[in-house]
Amino acid sequence: MENTKYESLIQTLWNCALACEHCATACLQEADVTPMAGCIKLDRDCADMCLQAARLLQRESDIALQYLLLCEEICRMCGDECGKHEHDHCQQCAEACRTCAEACHAHHQQITQS
Amino acid sequence: MENTKYESLIQTLWNCALACEHCATACLQEADVTPMAGCIKLDRDCADMCLQAARLLQRESDIALQYLLLCEEICRMCGDECGKHEHDHCQQCAEACRTCAEACHAHHQQITQS
Amino acid sequence: MENTKYESLIQTLWNCALACEHCATACLQEADVTPMAGCIKLDRDCADMCLQAARLLQRESDIALQYLLLCEEICRMCGDECGKHEHDHCQQCAEACRTCAEACHAHHQQITQS
Amino acid sequence: MENTKYESLIQTLWNCALACEHCATACLQEADVTPMAGCIKLDRDCADMCLQAARLLQRESDIALQYLLLCEEICRMCGDECGKHEHDHCQQCAEACRTCAEACHAHHQQITQS
Repeated sequence: MENTKYESLIQTLWNCALACEHCATACLQEADVTPMAGCIKLDRDCADMCLQAARLLQRESDIALQYLLLCEEICRMCGDECGKHEHDHCQQCAEACRTCAEACHAHHQQITQS
Repeated sequence: MENTKYESLIQTLWNCALACEHCATACLQEADVTPMAGCIKLDRDCADMCLQAARLLQRESDIALQYLLLCEEICRMCGDECGKHEHDHCQQCAEACRTCAEACHAHHQQITQS
Repeated sequence: MENTKYESLIQTLWNCALACEHCATACLQEADVTPMAGCIKLDRDCADMCLQAARLLQRESDIALQYLLLCEEICRMCGDECGKHEHDHCQQCAEACRTCAEACHAHHQQITQS
Repeated sequence: MENTKYESLIQTLWNCALACEHCATACLQEADVTPMAGCIKLDRDCADMCLQAARLLQRESDIALQYLLLCEEICRMCGDECGKHEHDHCQQCAEACRTCAEACHAHHQQITQS
């Protein structure tokens, strides 16, 4: 949608948000939800943060780039927690979070070095 | 903030959203999270719906009044589920949801009859 | 992300939200913003509504299908308004909104008939 | 709602978000919208950021305190821009933004010194 500069990063953020929403829902459907509490908590924050990051980039917000630093952090936290669990939805979410954390990081590096 | 017409309803929606956020967090900290899964799932939706309703009213959106009907429904569902659990956070959330459902309903009635 | 049932609809909602965010930003950068006020106002609501619809579908919310009805309506309103303006961003947004309104409608029809 | 620690800050963030939503809507209704474009753009970001900050605090998110630093910044930017305009809604919004920026700052100071 005409925002070619950040198109790939926006899509990565969106994929991460979807993975987190799915993981939280699937965690809540596990036979034993108790060990998944940490995942669900972080999935909730990570989905919110990634969606907001994508919107800020798409609308060319003055705060978007700084937001990516924070987004990277929640993605790392969520990826670390989900990575501890063997459920497919957790492993997929962990992968999406790590990819997203790296994309946020790479983008921020690129900006501050130019 | 200069939106006196809906001020009370907006505040009720906000209170409900806060109660849902708190209830979800507290449910995730219970010793046994499994029986709370339904609460957490509905708290998540209800918080999102109430916050969006409040924003739409505050910004005088053309879709705000229709949105209240849907908001009433999720508040009833969330209130019913939370009402089944004896934890303080669930009982408080159930109360906030019921108050909010009634406020949405009353407001919608008033509009469609005028 | 493992939600194959609604994957296409979720993507359509996301595309519409991005188009609305971009259109609002571009409207605010026009030489004369005054005639774009209606677009900006509806873009704001439509972006919020479509994003929330996508999240509700992805998380398999009990309220997701009803939400689509309301989402269809705001998409039609936003598409009608944007369609009146000849700027590329408005025409693209109008197209995204109409596609999204039809996708919401088709999906709802399919559900209520089955 | 049982989150007494951050209750006042959460309310300040909420008041700021409402002021921004109202200001954006009122700006869009001015006879000449063009000079208000900067306000509308920042109101949109500031409302989103303050609401998310309030939710993160209420849900005791691990990222909440860092988020306040970013929230302070967008509040300052929005307050500065709105403060340039004499409309009541802009002046009220500027005041709400400055109060909120200071509350975010004070809270962050307090935490990092303890």
